Formats: sequence, structure tokens, C-alpha cells
Amino acid sequence: MTKKTALVVSAHSADFVWRCGGAIALHQQLEYDVTVVCLSYGERGESAKLWKKPEMTLEKVKAERRKEAENAARALDVHDIRFFDLGDYPLEMDRAAKDQLIDVIRAVQPDFMLSHSQYDPYNTDHMYATSVALECRMIAQAWGHNPGEKVLGAPQLYLFEPHQTEQMNWKPDVFLDITPVWEKKRAAIECMLGQEHLWEYYTRVAENRANHFTRNSGGQSGGRAAKYAEGFQSVFPRTVDQL
Amino acid sequence: MTKKTALVVSAHSADFVWRCGGAIALHQQLEYDVTVVCLSYGERGESAKLWKKPEMTLEKVKAERRKEAENAARALDVHDIRFFDLGDYPLEMDRAAKDQLIDVIRAVQPDFMLSHSQYDPYNTDHMYATSVALECRMIAQAWGHNPGEKVLGAPQLYLFEPHQTEQMNWKPDVFLDITPVWEKKRAAIECMLGQEHLWEYYTRVAENRANHFTRNSGGQSGGRAAKYAEGFQSVFPRTVDQL
Amino acid sequence: MTKKTALVVSAHSADFVWRCGGAIALHQQLEYDVTVVCLSYGERGESAKLWKKPEMTLEKVKAERRKEAENAARALDVHDIRFFDLGDYPLEMDRAAKDQLIDVIRAVQPDFMLSHSQYDPYNTDHMYATSVALECRMIAQAWGHNPGEKVLGAPQLYLFEPHQTEQMNWKPDVFLDITPVWEKKRAAIECMLGQEHLWEYYTRVAENRANHFTRNSGGQSGGRAAKYAEGFQSVFPRTVDQL
Amino acid sequence: MTKKTALVVSAHSADFVWRCGGAIALHQQLEYDVTVVCLSYGERGESAKLWKKPEMTLEKVKAERRKEAENAARALDVHDIRFFDLGDYPLEMDRAAKDQLIDVIRAVQPDFMLSHSQYDPYNTDHMYATSVALECRMIAQAWGHNPGEKVLGAPQLYLFEPHQTEQMNWKPDVFLDITPVWEKKRAAIECMLGQEHLWEYYTRVAENRANHFTRNSGGQSGGRAAKYAEGFQSVFPRTVDQL
Amino acid sequence: MTKKTALVVSAHSADFVWRCGGAIALHQQLEYDVTVVCLSYGERGESAKLWKKPEMTLEKVKAERRKEAENAARALDVHDIRFFDLGDYPLEMDRAAKDQLIDVIRAVQPDFMLSHSQYDPYNTDHMYATSVALECRMIAQAWGHNPGEKVLGAPQLYLFEPHQTEQMNWKPDVFLDITPVWEKKRAAIECMLGQEHLWEYYTRVAENRANHFTRNSGGQSGGRAAKYAEGFQSVFPRTVDQL
Amino acid sequence: MTKKTALVVSAHSADFVWRCGGAIALHQQLEYDVTVVCLSYGERGESAKLWKKPEMTLEKVKAERRKEAENAARALDVHDIRFFDLGDYPLEMDRAAKDQLIDVIRAVQPDFMLSHSQYDPYNTDHMYATSVALECRMIAQAWGHNPGEKVLGAPQLYLFEPHQTEQMNWKPDVFLDITPVWEKKRAAIECMLGQEHLWEYYTRVAENRANHFTRNSGGQSGGRAAKYAEGFQSVFPRTVDQL
Repeated sequence: MTKKTALVVSAHSADFVWRCGGAIALHQQLEYDVTVVCLSYGERGESAKLWKKPEMTLEKVKAERRKEAENAARALDVHDIRFFDLGDYPLEMDRAAKDQLIDVIRAVQPDFMLSHSQYDPYNTDHMYATSVALECRMIAQAWGHNPGEKVLGAPQLYLFEPHQTEQMNWKPDVFLDITPVWEKKRAAIECMLGQEHLWEYYTRVAENRANHFTRNSGGQSGGRAAKYAEGFQSVFPRTVDQL
Repeated sequence: MTKKTALVVSAHSADFVWRCGGAIALHQQLEYDVTVVCLSYGERGESAKLWKKPEMTLEKVKAERRKEAENAARALDVHDIRFFDLGDYPLEMDRAAKDQLIDVIRAVQPDFMLSHSQYDPYNTDHMYATSVALECRMIAQAWGHNPGEKVLGAPQLYLFEPHQTEQMNWKPDVFLDITPVWEKKRAAIECMLGQEHLWEYYTRVAENRANHFTRNSGGQSGGRAAKYAEGFQSVFPRTVDQL
Repeated sequence: MTKKTALVVSAHSADFVWRCGGAIALHQQLEYDVTVVCLSYGERGESAKLWKKPEMTLEKVKAERRKEAENAARALDVHDIRFFDLGDYPLEMDRAAKDQLIDVIRAVQPDFMLSHSQYDPYNTDHMYATSVALECRMIAQAWGHNPGEKVLGAPQLYLFEPHQTEQMNWKPDVFLDITPVWEKKRAAIECMLGQEHLWEYYTRVAENRANHFTRNSGGQSGGRAAKYAEGFQSVFPRTVDQL
Repeated sequence: MTKKTALVVSAHSADFVWRCGGAIALHQQLEYDVTVVCLSYGERGESAKLWKKPEMTLEKVKAERRKEAENAARALDVHDIRFFDLGDYPLEMDRAAKDQLIDVIRAVQPDFMLSHSQYDPYNTDHMYATSVALECRMIAQAWGHNPGEKVLGAPQLYLFEPHQTEQMNWKPDVFLDITPVWEKKRAAIECMLGQEHLWEYYTRVAENRANHFTRNSGGQSGGRAAKYAEGFQSVFPRTVDQL
Repeated sequence: MTKKTALVVSAHSADFVWRCGGAIALHQQLEYDVTVVCLSYGERGESAKLWKKPEMTLEKVKAERRKEAENAARALDVHDIRFFDLGDYPLEMDRAAKDQLIDVIRAVQPDFMLSHSQYDPYNTDHMYATSVALECRMIAQAWGHNPGEKVLGAPQLYLFEPHQTEQMNWKPDVFLDITPVWEKKRAAIECMLGQEHLWEYYTRVAENRANHFTRNSGGQSGGRAAKYAEGFQSVFPRTVDQL
Repeated sequence: MTKKTALVVSAHSADFVWRCGGAIALHQQLEYDVTVVCLSYGERGESAKLWKKPEMTLEKVKAERRKEAENAARALDVHDIRFFDLGDYPLEMDRAAKDQLIDVIRAVQPDFMLSHSQYDPYNTDHMYATSVALECRMIAQAWGHNPGEKVLGAPQLYLFEPHQTEQMNWKPDVFLDITPVWEKKRAAIECMLGQEHLWEYYTRVAENRANHFTRNSGGQSGGRAAKYAEGFQSVFPRTVDQL
């Protein structure tokens, strides 16, 4: 039987760590092959600490952020990480860049995909990445795109947790228990040397989402305790044989 | 191990047939015990055909609708059906009626619940039933309500498909394949002698929802074909160990 | 052929003037019989000017507001105006009061109904009136409610313009040209002696809605000029033979 | 007097058939001239059946889909059909392509326009087509665009029914009785040889929308029976002389 | 000059602590008199820990919860705390109970009010409390309610942070720095002996809201650091002399 | 201490006058330096009156609209007005044009920004301008964009009042009293010779918004009377030390 796979579309190279590092490590542990595509390094907009250093250049920042992302990917047991290096603030993708993403989608044939919230007034790169993910998912399903290749099915697109969820109109409909892999997620988070102010922030997020997990799995009457969790919003309906 | 259970809260005695008859029959087949509570018989507002007959009385209409509902329940293998006889158009529930529903919830300890959409400008009984279902679910969770009884966990509340879905702001996030029990649902539908104009209508709904099932399970690239399906909207987030 | 009819459900006795006085006068002119039901006189909450006078009593306020509303109704050629005198701030309707409204609905058999916006955080009486209007419309359609009476069809419910539209989530989808009856509406407005501060306000509203009428009927390329208009939001879809 | 006209903006060459074939045939019968613009042939993304054949090429698919669309247009008595051949999955329009659409809009001077829903996570071409339709409608209204040409008025833009309406946030506010032209719509549908799985699907949609038509035109108390109907969502408010 | 005042409407006796304890302590420090109304003790639904003890009675639970709330109020320097003892799960208010709340509103003449989110499918008491707060605010503004009393102005109603914000459709539009009074809020939290599992949870909430405060006050370019913050959603628009 | 500043991003050269002329004049009076960026002259789409004159050319229209805007800016005491001359109907901005806007943002370092509503089906230029304003605000905050320049903080983006507010999903959350500068706004409005039909329209808007100001500042119980006001919708939450 074929291996299960998942694909993460991350606007900047650190996004996948804070927002779905637990889901990645957990599904790797569940024998999925998880591929991460970093559309940019977040080199201009999400690397303030590096830019405050003397003699900094765009190339140095990119190299540094790449190294951090690779370390984090290793900590999470990521199967494959790709850096598209498309630039950030703003992230812009021409037809060739989109084709490159479609190629990855088709090669991976993900059972599910992960990307950003559909609205983000603070960070237009984030919502842009998701709109491109939807477009490329659609093209990957087209029999007339590179005829002969295996076309894509209908994988769920989960939107991972943005910063300041309420401002992004993001509403989680699934909580994932990431307790078994928390140490890996925390290790990955600590690879993000330039954003140390977020380490504790996202640890608190994981702890509070675990409270939500517990409540929604039964609350004070037999709810299953989770210590760390992540939340996701589904774009598409599920298909089931049992409610 | 304890048996799995489900609970349907149906404003009028026919609602459970059109809207979740498939889910009921399927989960009975999956060894759930499904309990149906009919808050009213729909005797005033959903029995036009009977009222057009001569010499009709409220009691005769209620008896007729009850018989139809019992027949339908039998066709669906419903474990238990309760008639609260609270009146319709409008349905109104005082504290005692709500306590009666809470008692059923606690006795059943449902793994999931089913009720109407949260908005329905055509039929205020429907949205009222759901708001009561939420209130009673909450009270059933309270340790101080009839202390000593087993309190309720956190069962999902699925909103089943209303008539004219878009006008009710109802958006399904899960499609259930009911092909294996379709014959039972159709048989139950045909018990509704007073609403024959809806038999084909809801058969078409089931066929078209099956198309949605197929599309969302893979579409033209390996989507699993269903011939009949039902859609549901979840009120609460899910808790999972795998996406 | 039967006469066409319309029914206005007004929470307080002045509401129908500001919010749909033009629609009333216009449809009277179009040979409709328009009935207005004032659920209360707005005696407690919308009569500040009277309460500032010495020796004022609830009965005096009610008498005064009733007189104003009768004068306004006369100015608008209202076919029939009913005062239910149910009290305001808060308006509350028991089963008997609702039955009274249902009786009027059935007697009038309106081609369309008019009431308030569905949300109003400033004035809970307004949204309450609309929720009751929906409930009573439903009951009036029930064959089992007072069997033998003519049941109601499916009249549109138009929500007339609230004060501070955006705060009420009210979005007009139809603009009505009331230019031919503007003098009548203005005369009715001037019957509201206690709310003189609103005379010019609602005149400006009518003029600005006329600008919207013109824009949506063709704008700078042949839009039909209206000088005064009113806006309405439809609750239900329309059924047509031509788009 | 000038002839009445309508304009359909269809992302792919088959969309107009399923989604508004009835409206087209009906308005042709009502002496409108209806023009259909197919922005693409749906050659890559909506022609799976053809691509599964051996030796298939993009040109062959396009020729096939064009032939089908022409046949369908003939069945519907379409006044004029234009193929822009802009490519699909993704559909992209540069300034020249938009100008071409603006030219058609100005030439047709439509009394109303028809296009897709404003949101569609399954098919980004659909929502793109509507956003372009809005942009081009605006430009066609500009006196400074090709000065001297007759500028556009303010035609309604109706959004026709998408597949899986609830997922697209599409809410119909008008139902059109297409019973008189149903045979033509069905004939047009049967021209779509590559999508036979949708023939019955959209027949069921038309039948169920007819149920909605009947309900909203009076229901069990004198509602006018329609056998087939189509639903539409209006983008702009209407302007009327009578409610 | 008159003292500034604020009024908190808390469905259960612990709600004010978690959700706006910081705002209370801060405004007391700013010389406001803050009054807290606890509509119930949360004795049935929010006292699980007590009910698990032997020999527990409703009166004992209420006494215990009252003592905790009084201790918390003292820790926050609350000016006045009132216990309405109306029962919980469900909370229900008759006309007399509402009049009691209106009396408090008029006596306090609050510069602003605080209550729950407007939607909460987990806890219908919460949304009920807010709907009553809006109704009573309106009545307190009525010149005809207890004529002669000073009528209420138009205080803002802030909705404090619910548990699982996204599920409640709650979106904060203002963040308040509560760093100067954090020790008081934490002390108040620790008075809630029955809900120790929430102490750290709400400490994390305060820390993460501080991150949001910092970001929205300037972010990485001079944002003012807050260590603890609370978020609120405004129901009404503000009126200002400067943006 | 540094001077306070504000930045207006206006899609067409007249927009800033109708929509925030009062805010501009008021803040100039409050010693802010207000910069206005006109992305286009509205030469094609908002200059119908000029185009109806003989011998008109695009350059003449642009010159005329620029002169009007400069006059209006003078009437409002605008500190600095920039004309980007990017074309309208449609407005399109390439990377260079965006960089130009980012340069202005960084040079101005605004305490707050003003732009259009986020949705406008009548005028896609308006919503485009706001989406670009958000993108450029984000880039101006990036340490890696033109390293060495002073990066932007987190200024509020206020959305000023569109035409037909309800159609644009625009909901004001702040009303600004512009009474002290009304004469200046009216003078600026009268500079718009080509749109005389809007002079009275926007005067009425200002008067009615003043009614809203008064109501929300206390209503009939001590509300502060304003004679003219403007409304704005905030995109981001506020950060405060007092509610």
C-alpha cells in the first residue's frame, strides 16, 4: 500500500514551525511523509533581529533563515523541505512559480494540505499563499494540465492557526492532540533564534488549545486530557461512513 | 463495553425522517442505539392534507401523525422514539418540558446529537428546537443538576439539512454515505402519507448530496462513489489524534 | 378581483411613519388597503419630550402618542390602524397578544408585510417585533390554526430602514420611489410633535435614498431620477417569470 | 423601441448551460437578445472524459468543447455566443482581454448580466470571472473609456447557481420559473457529452428549485406550481415603483 | 465633579474574575467606582469540584461560591458587588429581576458596561446575560420608566473575553494594558478554589493578549510592551474629537 | 517632540474630499501634518460632466480634476498632496507604484491612515486601493525593505465612508465631530465643480452622522450635540490604558 502524505504551504520559512509543527511531527510519527514548501525565507519582513545586526545583507539573512528552517524541519522529522525563494513582503508568484508548486502537489499527492488563514490584514503574504494554494490545488486536479501525470484527488485544506486568530476571521473546527510530539515541536521552535519572543507565546497557545481539546472531548465528564494541542480550520466538507 | 448512542431532537414528528433518516438507520446498523424525541406532532402546521379532510380534529391529526412517525421509526430501526406532545406553530417549552428533555439526554448519554438549523425564517419552531437542544445539553452537563446522576460529556451537535438550505444559513461540513440503508430511508419516507409531494424531493436531495460526497472524497480522481448521502453541519469543533 | 393589501407591524406607534410612510401612502394610491398594527405607543421609551412636561402620566402620554399616530395615519391614507397597547421598553407579547396579531394577518391576507430589522442592539423592542412577526406569519399559514379560516400564503416580509442602518446589519435590496407621495409622508412626519428633531433627519434620509435609487436604475447613463425614496431588505426570495 | 438584451459571462464553455440555460431560453422567448461570452473552453480542467481518450491534444479538446457549447447555445436559442479562448485552470485576463469583454458589454448594453458566485474554493476560475465581470461593468460605465461610445447603465448582476451552493456562500434571492423552456434546457444539457454524470444532477436541481418557487409563491395556500426553476443571487439592489 | 463609574454584568459569580478582573482593578485605581452584578452563583453548572464532595447541597455550594466571589472582589478593590441569586443552568430573569438590574444601572449611571459575548453555544447563560443587559440598558434610557429618576445616557457595552473566543464569534477591538494591576487579578483568580485548572490558563491568556497589545501599539518598531492585557469587543460605535 | 501625522490613500482625486475632508481639516487644526496621496485623477470614471463637453481629452480632464483637488486640499489645509497619476477604471499598481507609496508611508510615518471600504461591487478601484494600502503598510514595517530607513510602526487604518454604505459591508465604529471645520469641508466640496449633484448629498450625510454622534454620546440624556460628523471603520484593534 502507498504511504500517506501531507503537504504544508508556508509563506515564510518559519511559519510551519509555530503553526503546525505538531501536526507535522505527529503525522511523521504516524508514518506519513510530510513535505514542507517554504515560498520565501521571510527575509525582509520577518527577520527584524538579523537586520538590526551590522553589515547585514539580504543573502546573509536568507542563509540564516534557511538554516533555522532546516534545523526545525530536522527536529520535526520533516520528510522533505523545499525552499522556493520567491521573496517576501510582498510574496508574489508568477505562472512558473505556481507551476513549480503544482509539480510538488502532484508529486506528493497529499492526503491533506496545510496553509494560512484566508484573511490577514496584518500580513497579506499569508492570505496570498492560501489563495495560491487553492488555485494550484485546482490546477493539479485538471486532467489537461500536463496530461499523463497522475491528477490530484480532493485533499482537505486545513488552515493552521494565525497570530491573533480573531482578527483573521479564523475559526478552528478541529483540535489535534500533539502531546506525544511536543518535545519535538518545542525543539523546532527553539531553532528560531531570531524570534525568541515567540517561544513562550506559542507554548502558551499549545497549552491553551489543549484545554480546548479536553473540553470538546468531554470536559468535566470524562474529557480526555491533552497537554498540548493545535487547532485547524477546514476549507472543505468531510466525507464519512459514520458520524 | 457500553453501547454507543445517539439522540435526535425533532421539532415535529416527521422532521427526523427527511433530514436524518439515513443517519439513524446507518448508526443503528453500526450498533448504536438511536433515540428520537419528537417535541410535537406537527399537528397544526405540517398536516395540511389531513386538515383538508372533513370532520378533522386536533386529536385525530395527532393520532395520524404519531402513527406515521412510529411506522417510519420502525422502518429505520429506531431504538426508541418519544413523543413529547408539546404543541406546534408555535412550539413552546416550559421548564418542565425542558427537564423532560434533559432527563432523556442524561439517560441516553448520546455520543452525538442531531437537530435543526440555527436560523429558519420560515419555521421558527425549527430554530427554537435547536436553541432548546443547546440549552438542555448545557444543563445536562451541570454537576448540580440532579446531583448524583451521571453528567453529560460533550457530544457533537449536528444540524441536519433544512428545506431551502441557503435561506437558513446552513452550511454542511460533513457528508455521510447512506447508500447501505437507502431502502430503509425511502421506506420511512413513504410512511409520510400526508406529505407525498416531498418523497421525490428528498430522494433527489439524497442523490445530489451523494454527488457532493463523491466530489469531496476525490472527484474525478478516485472519488468514492456514493449513491445516497446526507449532509450535516457541526456546531462544535472535533478533537482528533490524526488529521 | 380581490383588493391588494399590505400589513405593517410597528413596535411603537411612530415607527411606521419614519420607516415606511412613503410605502404606505404609495400603495394606498396604488389601490392597496394598508393596515398598520402598532404594538405599543412607545409611551415609555420614545416619548421623552412629553415626560419632560409637568404632571405627566402614562395614560396622558399614550393618549398623546395615539393621537399623533392617528393623525399620521390619516395623512398617509392608511386604510386601517390598530393599537394593541402592549407596552414598550420592553415590548412583550403573550400567546393572546400573538393570536390577536395572527387574527389580523389572516383577516388582511397581506400581499406583503413590513417590519423592523432583525438586529438592533439599541432597541430590543424592534428586533422582538420582527421575530414575532415571523412567528405569527408562520402560524397564520398553519391549516390547523383555527381550522376553517383562510390560511395565509407566503407574503414577503420587508424590513424597513432602522436608525443607524449599519449598526443593525441591515442591507437594503430594494429602493422604492416615493416621490409621488412625498408630501403625504412629510405631512405625516410633522404629526410627530414630540420628535421634531427627526423631521429633517428623515427628510435627508429620503433624499439620499433617492440618490441611491437613481444610481441603481442607471446612474449617469439614463438613471431615472427620484427625489425621495425608501429602502427595504427582503427576508424571503422572490419568485418571478422574468429577471 | 430597442430590444432588451442580456449578457452571460461564463468562465468555461459549459457553465452557462447548467447554471442559467433556462434563464437564457426563457428570455430569448421573451424577445431578449441574449449574448453568451465563454472566457475559456474549460479545456484543461473540465474535460476529464476527453483527456482519458488516447491521442488527445489541447486543440482537439477545445474543438470538441466548442462544438458542444455551440450545440447547446443553438438548443437555447442563444442570440450570440463568443469564445474568448483565454485558457482555464487558471483563467487569467490581461488588459486586452478585459477590454474585449468591455467592448462586448458596451455593444450589448445588457438589461442584466449573469455570472458565477463570488466565492468558490473548489474553482478559482469561477470567482475570478465574477470579479472581472464587476471590474468590466464598472469600466463600461466610465465616460472616459473610449469616449464617444454609449456608456453602460447599471444592469443587475445575477450570480447563477454554483455546484455545492452552501460551500460558495451563495444565497438565491430570486427564483425563475423555467417550466416553459425546460425541454430546451434539457436538450442543451444533453449536448454536454463529456459530463453525462451531471445531466440528472442538474435536472434534479431544477425540480427542487421548482419546489422552492412554489413555496415562496404561496406554498400550501395557493402557491403557483412550477415544475422547473433556476435560482439567482442579486449583487445590486433593485429599484421599483411598487413593492 | 461626579465620580466615574462602571458596571459589570456577570452571569455566574466567577465570570467577572477571569474575563475582566484586570479592567476592574485598573479602573478602580483610576478612581472609578466599579459595581459588579452576579446574576447567579454558577452553583449548578460551574461548581463541579464542590459537587464531587460528599454531603453537598445547593445552599452550601452557593455559600462557597459567594465567599470566593467576595474574596475576589476584595482583591480587585471592587466598589460594590451584588448577588442577584437568580439560579443558573439555566439563568432566567423575569420582569422583577430585570427591574432590579435596571435599578442598579440607573443608580450606578455607568460610564461603560461589561458583559459576555453575544453568542455562546456551550453556555446559553452567557449570551442570555448579554441580551438582558442590552434590554435593561434600553429600559434604563426610557424617560417613562420610573419617571423622575435620572435616565441613563449611552454607555458603551464591552463584551469581555469568552472561553474559546473563535467559537463565540467574539472579535476584540480594544486591548487594555493591565500590567499595573496584574498582581491583583492573579490574587483574585487564586480565590477561585474550585477552578484551579483555570488559573494558569487565564494567566497565559493575559500574557498572550499582552503580545497583541504590543503588536498593535507599534510592533517591532516602538510598540509599547505590556506584560498582561485583556481584550474587549465594543457593541456600539465611539464618538471622538480626534482619531 | 515630533509632529503628529496622518496619511490618506485616495483612489481618485476627489474621494478624500467627500469621505474624510472633515477628518483632514480637523487634524490639521490639531497640528497634525496630513498627507494625501491621490492614486489617480478619476479621469475616466468619475468625470462624466467633463466628458460631456466638446473637444475633451484625457489630459484636459486630468488637469481639471487635479486643479479641483488642489483647490480642495487648500481649503482643507492639507499639508501635502501627491498625485501618482496611475490611471483609473481600472486603477492598477505595479511594483514600482507600490514602492512609491511605501516611500511616502515611511517618509510620513503616519499616526493613522485612511482609505476606502474593503468591499465595493460598484467600484473595484476603491477596494483595490485599500488592499494595496494594507500590503504597502506591511512592507513599510519590514526591516529588510530598504534597510536603514526608519520602519513603520502599527498605525490604525480607518476606512472612510463609501457611497451606499450597506452595499459595501461597511460598518462605522467611530464617529468624529467635524463641526469646528465644517465650513472648510463644505468649501472643499464646492471645489468639485464636476460633481455638483453630490454637494448636498454629502452635506446631508454629515448632518445625519452628527445625529449618530449625538445618540452614541448620550442621546436624550446629555448626549453632546454635534452638527456635522464623519464615520470611520477601524481595521485593527486599539490599545488603551483606560476603557
